Amino acid sequence: MPAGDLFTVTAVRGGTKPEAGESRSKQKEYQLVQVKNTWCRIECGQEMPTLWEEDQVIVSQAKIGEQVTESGVSWTVKAPIYFCYKVIETQHLLNPTNMTLLYGHVSDPQELDDYNKKTQKRFIVMDATVEQLYGSKVRKYFEAHDVVYKILTVETTEETKSMDLVLHILEEVHKFGLDRRTEPIIAIGGGVCLDSVGLAASLYRRRTPYIRVPTTLLSYVDASVGAKNGVNFCNCKNKLGTYTPPIATLLDRSFIQTIPRRHISNGLGEILKMALMKHKGLFELLEKNGKYLLDTKFQSRNGLACHGDAALTTTRLAIQTMLEELAPNLWEDDLDRLVDYGHVISPELEMKVLPSLMHGEAVNIDMAFMTYVSHEIGLITLEEKIRTVQCMRNLELPVWHRDCSFQLIKKALAERFKHSGGKLRLPLPTGLGIAEIFNDVREEIIKSAFASWQEELGEFST
Amino acid sequence: MPAGDLFTVTAVRGGTKPEAGESRSKQKEYQLVQVKNTWCRIECGQEMPTLWEEDQVIVSQAKIGEQVTESGVSWTVKAPIYFCYKVIETQHLLNPTNMTLLYGHVSDPQELDDYNKKTQKRFIVMDATVEQLYGSKVRKYFEAHDVVYKILTVETTEETKSMDLVLHILEEVHKFGLDRRTEPIIAIGGGVCLDSVGLAASLYRRRTPYIRVPTTLLSYVDASVGAKNGVNFCNCKNKLGTYTPPIATLLDRSFIQTIPRRHISNGLGEILKMALMKHKGLFELLEKNGKYLLDTKFQSRNGLACHGDAALTTTRLAIQTMLEELAPNLWEDDLDRLVDYGHVISPELEMKVLPSLMHGEAVNIDMAFMTYVSHEIGLITLEEKIRTVQCMRNLELPVWHRDCSFQLIKKALAERFKHSGGKLRLPLPTGLGIAEIFNDVREEIIKSAFASWQEELGEFST
Repeated sequence: MPAGDLFTVTAVRGGTKPEAGESRSKQKEYQLVQVKNTWCRIECGQEMPTLWEEDQVIVSQAKIGEQVTESGVSWTVKAPIYFCYKVIETQHLLNPTNMTLLYGHVSDPQELDDYNKKTQKRFIVMDATVEQLYGSKVRKYFEAHDVVYKILTVETTEETKSMDLVLHILEEVHKFGLDRRTEPIIAIGGGVCLDSVGLAASLYRRRTPYIRVPTTLLSYVDASVGAKNGVNFCNCKNKLGTYTPPIATLLDRSFIQTIPRRHISNGLGEILKMALMKHKGLFELLEKNGKYLLDTKFQSRNGLACHGDAALTTTRLAIQTMLEELAPNLWEDDLDRLVDYGHVISPELEMKVLPSLMHGEAVNIDMAFMTYVSHEIGLITLEEKIRTVQCMRNLELPVWHRDCSFQLIKKALAERFKHSGGKLRLPLPTGLGIAEIFNDVREEIIKSAFASWQEELGEFST
Repeated sequence: MPAGDLFTVTAVRGGTKPEAGESRSKQKEYQLVQVKNTWCRIECGQEMPTLWEEDQVIVSQAKIGEQVTESGVSWTVKAPIYFCYKVIETQHLLNPTNMTLLYGHVSDPQELDDYNKKTQKRFIVMDATVEQLYGSKVRKYFEAHDVVYKILTVETTEETKSMDLVLHILEEVHKFGLDRRTEPIIAIGGGVCLDSVGLAASLYRRRTPYIRVPTTLLSYVDASVGAKNGVNFCNCKNKLGTYTPPIATLLDRSFIQTIPRRHISNGLGEILKMALMKHKGLFELLEKNGKYLLDTKFQSRNGLACHGDAALTTTRLAIQTMLEELAPNLWEDDLDRLVDYGHVISPELEMKVLPSLMHGEAVNIDMAFMTYVSHEIGLITLEEKIRTVQCMRNLELPVWHRDCSFQLIKKALAERFKHSGGKLRLPLPTGLGIAEIFNDVREEIIKSAFASWQEELGEFST
């Protein structure tokens, strides 16, 4: 038997001599269909064998290309992975009558039945501070539901955010033992906690589901929504990590009441970013209610059901606009990202003055400067510039920093250029709540924007 | 302004009282479209605003569901990530005239132009043994192309396959410095090397492209093809890892000529698995050419272009059948997997007798036993059973092991049940080169299959 017959496709070679520069190759594309547990490839455009009954056949979205050349066969696999995750607003998350913490991630009622049949196990990781404030409530919650649980308390700072922390979590997870399909790991805390647990879960058995419960305003609107996780490495921020979304993020604003006022401003920085980039209504809400939100620490007076409430509306719009930008670009394949606003200069600045600036503060200083760049180019009016800066001040966010020198800005822009495939990709507001990405911003613009910024907002400004 | 107006969708509440058990909620689904760098959500089924010109609009495949209930909003994100990777057969990979090692992963000619404009950097990780045999050739290759390179040599055994090794690789990668979009990390070695480097690359900046160059027969047909990577943790095999495919796998059979005969058998075990599960032609090739392939160490006499060559055809069919099964199930969401054949009992056995059995050998002992199970059920004939065992023997693979006790088998099947969502999901041959997944195999069947297996193939068999 000639071996060539063994392949679904044999090398096809034309009898004519190839043109100069044309490689003697033949490309075919196959789709994949499953019949009785076995996947077979069928050339695209060809019909399925008639002996297969339609209802027995599963067609995959994956495709395999096959090219035969002089040096052999080259296959190209194109295969999609579908991520599905939930972001759930809830109230009284730790009240035993609320089933969200235990089953909020489950969508399928059939699956829920299966869950109820057996004793549940949960592994929970908490910030030390969160443990102090909410540890006993969490214990009572799981005890009320007869869940076999283990709470691991960890110190979470930028300094402890490392692979050591991840491996420590993993050792404890391994000792405890989990069904990796049905018993998600739960992280309750701020960004560092959520990011580290997310990475640990992503690695354990190549992917164990995890749940995020953010307890700070910043993590509520930022770390909670996307797929990213990670830890610091070799003094670089979030250098190691993966893009694995949690199975669910559970949002309870009541946690925010226990964080300091400065941390509220910190979170407001990221909310303002979304407002400036794509939602004028959100901007106007922040403009009008900034002080009120800081004073009330995002607690609603009339409960969540009151849709007119500024705290509810602000957080909900922040989540909604973030989801819009992140969902289509979950693995950040597209480098043109509005969510990068405030994140071009701030990484340099944040690392330089660590720990004096919080993340949202550094982001805001970056945005304040970019507001001047935008105005210098003529993308926004003087009035829009003034309103933006005034809003930042109302949110008690810094709008300038002495260490944010022209040199630092130039260096940060050069880094941006280098790491963004040779383009600047600068998100800039073109009005209030509207923005675009720009690649050609001349150095003179940066220079004169810097001069005005320095003069109007710097330490010797009036 | 009432805050409700700010949302694209306001909570919709029916005026009628909900039925018992019906939750007062409303579900909407949105698609995401991008206009001028900004993503917006549009309710599915609704038309796009007419002021948008069609060619300016990008429609994402991601979708966001939104459900409004008494306790707040719940969003469900469904977003696909498209993986694309190449598996390339080549000859003389380390010959400087072959550009595959440097640019084989690039598909887009425009991209290739960009590459050629600047000095290339490559970070290469090699097994210590591979370095001894091929190190100088690799150096010469990159020097001939004026590539700035660094070769890291690592000890790769099951004992060193750990997170420590991954972090060591990452520190060196970080010191060297790479453009994470265009300068892939290259791994040259066996499975342990490819798996560890794959994990390191997957973590670095949340995903740095990497290239696999397998140098053993087992890694050529197995570790090379899928998305999996990983390391051992707490004495458990591949407990930590990710599903991130390499940007390309480069296959050069000439590496195989330097591995010991027993390692050829080891690789043949995994090839035989694919043959038994889904390709009778491949089985017949192995049946006919087993000894020849072992003797010639998979080297073709007449070069790759000779399609009648058994070494070429065998490896190519192994890759093709593996790709068929892996591409539609890249993240192993579907637990019914034919590629699990030989991997139900073997993990227990392999760990028990470590290091006396190689992976492919343990897999083969598992398959030999399952052949008896299949015959006991009546899925295959006596002749098919005998041919299968004879073929295994021709490939110089063990077909029985004294430590593979009935107790061990029962324990392994219980583990399988536990970790496969409460089903057995046993792949079993139903003929030569054809198989199905079975969930209900009675213990009596296992018992009598074990007795026959013991009697016919055990140490006191005739």
